[in-house]
Amino acid sequence: MRMMDAIAEYRRIAAFTAGLARSPRQRNAVHEADAELLEIADESAMLLAVKTDAVVEEIESGLYSDPELVGWMAVTSSLSDLAAVGAEPLGVLLAWTIPPGTDDAFIAGLARGASAACEAGGTFVVGGDTNEGAHLAACGSAVGLVARGGVLTRVGARPGDAVYLTGPAGLGSAYALSRLEGGRELFFRPRARLAQGRLLRGRASACIDTSDGVLDALDTLTRLNACRMALDARWEEVVHPAALAIARERGLPPWLMLAGIHGEFELCFTVARERERDLAAAFAGASAPLVRLGEVEVGEGVALRTARVEVTLDTAAIRNAGAVAGSDPRAYVERLVAIAHSAGAGEERS
Amino acid sequence: MRMMDAIAEYRRIAAFTAGLARSPRQRNAVHEADAELLEIADESAMLLAVKTDAVVEEIESGLYSDPELVGWMAVTSSLSDLAAVGAEPLGVLLAWTIPPGTDDAFIAGLARGASAACEAGGTFVVGGDTNEGAHLAACGSAVGLVARGGVLTRVGARPGDAVYLTGPAGLGSAYALSRLEGGRELFFRPRARLAQGRLLRGRASACIDTSDGVLDALDTLTRLNACRMALDARWEEVVHPAALAIARERGLPPWLMLAGIHGEFELCFTVARERERDLAAAFAGASAPLVRLGEVEVGEGVALRTARVEVTLDTAAIRNAGAVAGSDPRAYVERLVAIAHSAGAGEERS
Repeated sequence: MRMMDAIAEYRRIAAFTAGLARSPRQRNAVHEADAELLEIADESAMLLAVKTDAVVEEIESGLYSDPELVGWMAVTSSLSDLAAVGAEPLGVLLAWTIPPGTDDAFIAGLARGASAACEAGGTFVVGGDTNEGAHLAACGSAVGLVARGGVLTRVGARPGDAVYLTGPAGLGSAYALSRLEGGRELFFRPRARLAQGRLLRGRASACIDTSDGVLDALDTLTRLNACRMALDARWEEVVHPAALAIARERGLPPWLMLAGIHGEFELCFTVARERERDLAAAFAGASAPLVRLGEVEVGEGVALRTARVEVTLDTAAIRNAGAVAGSDPRAYVERLVAIAHSAGAGEERS
Repeated sequence: MRMMDAIAEYRRIAAFTAGLARSPRQRNAVHEADAELLEIADESAMLLAVKTDAVVEEIESGLYSDPELVGWMAVTSSLSDLAAVGAEPLGVLLAWTIPPGTDDAFIAGLARGASAACEAGGTFVVGGDTNEGAHLAACGSAVGLVARGGVLTRVGARPGDAVYLTGPAGLGSAYALSRLEGGRELFFRPRARLAQGRLLRGRASACIDTSDGVLDALDTLTRLNACRMALDARWEEVVHPAALAIARERGLPPWLMLAGIHGEFELCFTVARERERDLAAAFAGASAPLVRLGEVEVGEGVALRTARVEVTLDTAAIRNAGAVAGSDPRAYVERLVAIAHSAGAGEERS
């Protein structure tokens, strides 16, 4: 895959996947889909979609301390990956690591958060494991089914396609910023867009969730599909109102809310122009309006465009900001802001 | 379920499962099977078997430090649970938590161990997640399929049934003891008994793995099936030769090698007397001989019997020894030895 090793995260994954044999049952290559797609049987019309996601860094960095949020995210992170391939969940497994002496009320909060997230996703905790360890952590694994013919992957975007989000984004970055810098704290319980993923089956040409931020998602799609994406800087529509307010309070360019590695669970997808009308009709009854971000173009990179200028963002630098800043969240935010200023995007602030 | 709350582990699990809704697709109740059994579709002859298992305590206590062993166990722990329900694996997901600054050689060792375990189990790593965290940890999740008609659970043992192991056990406890007390270290790469699990479909009346030790497995079976199990004290056959040697070096009763919470991955199962001949025929070509432990009886508890005496073991005390001793492994071993002596089992030492 072109330019994949420019991204620190991919180098980290490669260290684990190098030398591993690939299952003949697996329908996706590494990076090609949010969830892993496995054949159950040759003749089956359904594929199994599976995904594991651990909540570790968010707890150790102090981003999450509310047990209900930890439980919610342990379930929703992997459910969101099922949504992004268009799958219906069969259930979630949860492995908990609990420090000795954790009180019952805290454990009840973890369970309550996990339960609420399952209810929101129309699914169930079907099993788990408990361990004692120095640091709280949770590992969620979701399993689901998706019709072979309707499965969504990250591959298939073509120049001319439109780029969408299932709703305004940036709440994840805004939550992180408000937690790290103090001040007004956002309520944060992002939902997995399972119903939306189902509606995208047979409609979207490529799909990914925004769990690592919108720019990360767009960068991934442009690399995997060898294309460029140009976004319209209509922040009032694209950035969630609460995130927009937090950006403005701090004098940050609104698109920075799409740049943080701590995202939410909107789906970011592409759709052929001739299918946009059908897409709009399918989502007419949806609770949140679709957000049209821009278009897929020939080329590479992710660009922001206004009536006056088009700025290509250094999305590799944005994605690598965490690796450069190390584990210090404040250094990470400062690095993002520096990238924003070097992109000359300060003028978009108004 | 009778007497389940006598066990600290079950109280811990109950704190997480209380209040959780149960999936209508799930065929097993809590505790009833090593892996969770889910219906894929009403008409399907196959059930999905899924299990998650995190390797945390073994690393933090110093029991595992070799990266290849960590990788091996992260895969094999959950594969063993698939074996115990008779399932064929479709793949394994691995979520890694890696301390900052971990060197490439260590990560390559983790991957090598995981790969070797998959190869031994005839399966593949199909996906994963990497996180940075203060302590090394791994969470493995296995998915597989099992024919609805052949599925093995922990429930179904009846008085009169024979009790078996797929092979001599105790290597897990012996490994732990040799690590904690220094001295000669055992090579430890226990295999998931997937082929044996397949042979037990339609033959075993109940099945569980020995990942938490043989006595833990037997205690679980007696509680779930409201029965008693009487074991013959034929240690030369039951306890793995390397474990037997370590017990004798230390002057410990051999059955203590079956009591430690750090087990291995043999299957412990029951079979109706009239099926024992068929069982022997099915396993005639197997690499390791089956070990006949004893019989299921009316009553409760787990008993050791010799020609002279029958001693009922306090398996609840054995299972709770970890909770009583806290996270100090040496205190745990001392507690087990104290229980052994109070059981009057010292005389079985020769």
